[in-house]
Amino acid sequence: MQYSDSILKTPSSFIRNILKVTDAADVISFAGGLPNPISFPIDALKQSVNDSIDSSGAKLFQYSTTQGYLPLRQYIADKYNKKQPNLNYTADDVLITTGSQQALELISKVLLNKGDGVIIEEPGYLGAIQAFTLREPTFYGITLETEGLNVGQLKAALKKPDIKMVYTVPNFQNPTGLTYTKERREEVFEAVKDKDVIFIEDDPYGELRFTGEHLPYIAAGKMANSVVLGSFSKTVTPGMRLGYMLTKNHELLNHVETAKQATDLHTNIFAQYILHHYLTNNAYEEHVEKIIALYKEQADAMLAAMETYFPPHVSYTKPEGGMFIWVTMPEGVNALEKFNEAMEQKVAFVPGNPFYTTNKEVNTMRLNYTNATPEIIEEGIKRLGKIL
Amino acid sequence: MQYSDSILKTPSSFIRNILKVTDAADVISFAGGLPNPISFPIDALKQSVNDSIDSSGAKLFQYSTTQGYLPLRQYIADKYNKKQPNLNYTADDVLITTGSQQALELISKVLLNKGDGVIIEEPGYLGAIQAFTLREPTFYGITLETEGLNVGQLKAALKKPDIKMVYTVPNFQNPTGLTYTKERREEVFEAVKDKDVIFIEDDPYGELRFTGEHLPYIAAGKMANSVVLGSFSKTVTPGMRLGYMLTKNHELLNHVETAKQATDLHTNIFAQYILHHYLTNNAYEEHVEKIIALYKEQADAMLAAMETYFPPHVSYTKPEGGMFIWVTMPEGVNALEKFNEAMEQKVAFVPGNPFYTTNKEVNTMRLNYTNATPEIIEEGIKRLGKIL
Repeated sequence: MQYSDSILKTPSSFIRNILKVTDAADVISFAGGLPNPISFPIDALKQSVNDSIDSSGAKLFQYSTTQGYLPLRQYIADKYNKKQPNLNYTADDVLITTGSQQALELISKVLLNKGDGVIIEEPGYLGAIQAFTLREPTFYGITLETEGLNVGQLKAALKKPDIKMVYTVPNFQNPTGLTYTKERREEVFEAVKDKDVIFIEDDPYGELRFTGEHLPYIAAGKMANSVVLGSFSKTVTPGMRLGYMLTKNHELLNHVETAKQATDLHTNIFAQYILHHYLTNNAYEEHVEKIIALYKEQADAMLAAMETYFPPHVSYTKPEGGMFIWVTMPEGVNALEKFNEAMEQKVAFVPGNPFYTTNKEVNTMRLNYTNATPEIIEEGIKRLGKIL
Repeated sequence: MQYSDSILKTPSSFIRNILKVTDAADVISFAGGLPNPISFPIDALKQSVNDSIDSSGAKLFQYSTTQGYLPLRQYIADKYNKKQPNLNYTADDVLITTGSQQALELISKVLLNKGDGVIIEEPGYLGAIQAFTLREPTFYGITLETEGLNVGQLKAALKKPDIKMVYTVPNFQNPTGLTYTKERREEVFEAVKDKDVIFIEDDPYGELRFTGEHLPYIAAGKMANSVVLGSFSKTVTPGMRLGYMLTKNHELLNHVETAKQATDLHTNIFAQYILHHYLTNNAYEEHVEKIIALYKEQADAMLAAMETYFPPHVSYTKPEGGMFIWVTMPEGVNALEKFNEAMEQKVAFVPGNPFYTTNKEVNTMRLNYTNATPEIIEEGIKRLGKIL
């Protein structure tokens, strides 16, 4: 059997393959990217299931609409408008997806012909690289600096033919933990505002800010072709696969709706009812504050240990939120070789390789801090320091 | 913005557009395709939610594996082996999908390059036509006769270049309600068995058989490139979007797993736990017997009314199970015009058009009987008889 060109190009998860060797009980793993399970509001969700079944019965179990449960769409629009009033979203600007990963895949399906251009951060989110690759695009990787996308490279890439979209993770990016500065957001917006491209701001971690204030989105509220992606995976539960996209471009949204219908008809409506009930009957913001406090403590523990145990020739990011720290070793150091050395010390990370759109040797790694206690984080960083 | 060629070719749902006009309270609608909500085991599912949360806690809420929840995969393999022992499925042959619609989309993604050949029943399942169209294939529509696919046409189509798959719904097909005979199954198998094609048997209705016995699958258990698709949407709940694919071709399954990971990471694990608990703690077979009795009564009422009120120049199928009856009017009658006449009589159906891969005038319609009482069915068929 000859499989499609696109699936043969699509990388299966490097991270998943790594997790197979890092799962051993005596390994301290910073390789995962899972929310801490103590962040799931299990009792409240259980109550919401029972209440929702009692009040809405069969509606939770029947086929439903592709765009998603209207009260949940309204809740999401209101939430964003409250955070940033110039967004002015309505429920009609929202489409519920089977996790925000699905939004990436649907958008690429409605935008990309083979060879079309996609501008993406380098390093960038692995799941986006996978989803886009299914459409066989031409990737233009733009260096992600401490302040955000390199604007000179961005402007040059925007002159390339058939550029259809720019993909960014402006807050606490995966894999780097970096956040675009206010100034860089404005510069990036100036570079794209008159271009016929879809500008995606993927923001699954935005609510998990430890320090500083919410910064305005780059293009949302200012540009018709703006798309914001969000998720409840990092604040309520990833297991229910509930994400969404927000856009004022209803032509795009209608195409995405058609693509979604052909893909999975609609997102689990049972889960949408439960989530909406949970959000509107509990102190959601207090819940998020607890997750923030937890992750901040873990991030601080990791950064303090890195300060103590890492040699000065190793640099790393200092995230204002989210789940990841990005480490850069001296030039010439091969992250894959370091991974093997680290495993001998019973500590694991993700080598930077899968976060680039080209195969090359890299000297970077991603560390996750949300799934270990401060004590274990310190021990793991100490082990890692030995091999650096 | 220039959207992708494939999305511009993909039909948005004809049925959904029809449902907008057929939703009025005084219209008797045979246009839908929804399970009867009284078939949902709501109390038992509620119990399963509570028990599953109590016993498995955070595991229901965390990220999970792309292939699906192992005990559910094992349950599905066992269930098929019990129904037809030569299938010999193991849990490794099963992948859980976000509804069986997603399996269609994933398989087409891993198999089809633009222009590759897809053999499909004509008329065929609308959702499959939509999912496959996203890959811009060449469709070869093969006449679906009362006994099954026309084998002469099938053999001719199999000689065309780059045929990648044959898509069938062997039991109580949507839209026709037809079931392949045992003999035709064997003839179809003989035609495909030595070909390098994936043979899909999509079987969402297979358990809902009113009369006769389970017939062996066409290719499953006999051909490495066989794929069987199934669903819990018609027997437990469609709202949770739980389907699956079964195949012994693990190269195909691995590619589908990669595609699924890039598409939505994994299927809602909360719903998978609940479903598995429900299936293993309740009398599922008795539950299905109740749905069968309900739908049989409704199908019998519709067929009896058609016998009474339809003129002799109108023919129709007599389903052995499932949810649909297919009506053929005399040649030259335009189903779309009849739809408008029917709406004046306050009765609705789906004109046959969207079930063909080419745009043409057709004299056929699909009737659904699972969502009305026998009395209302009789009244609706009486109204329909007037305009036929």
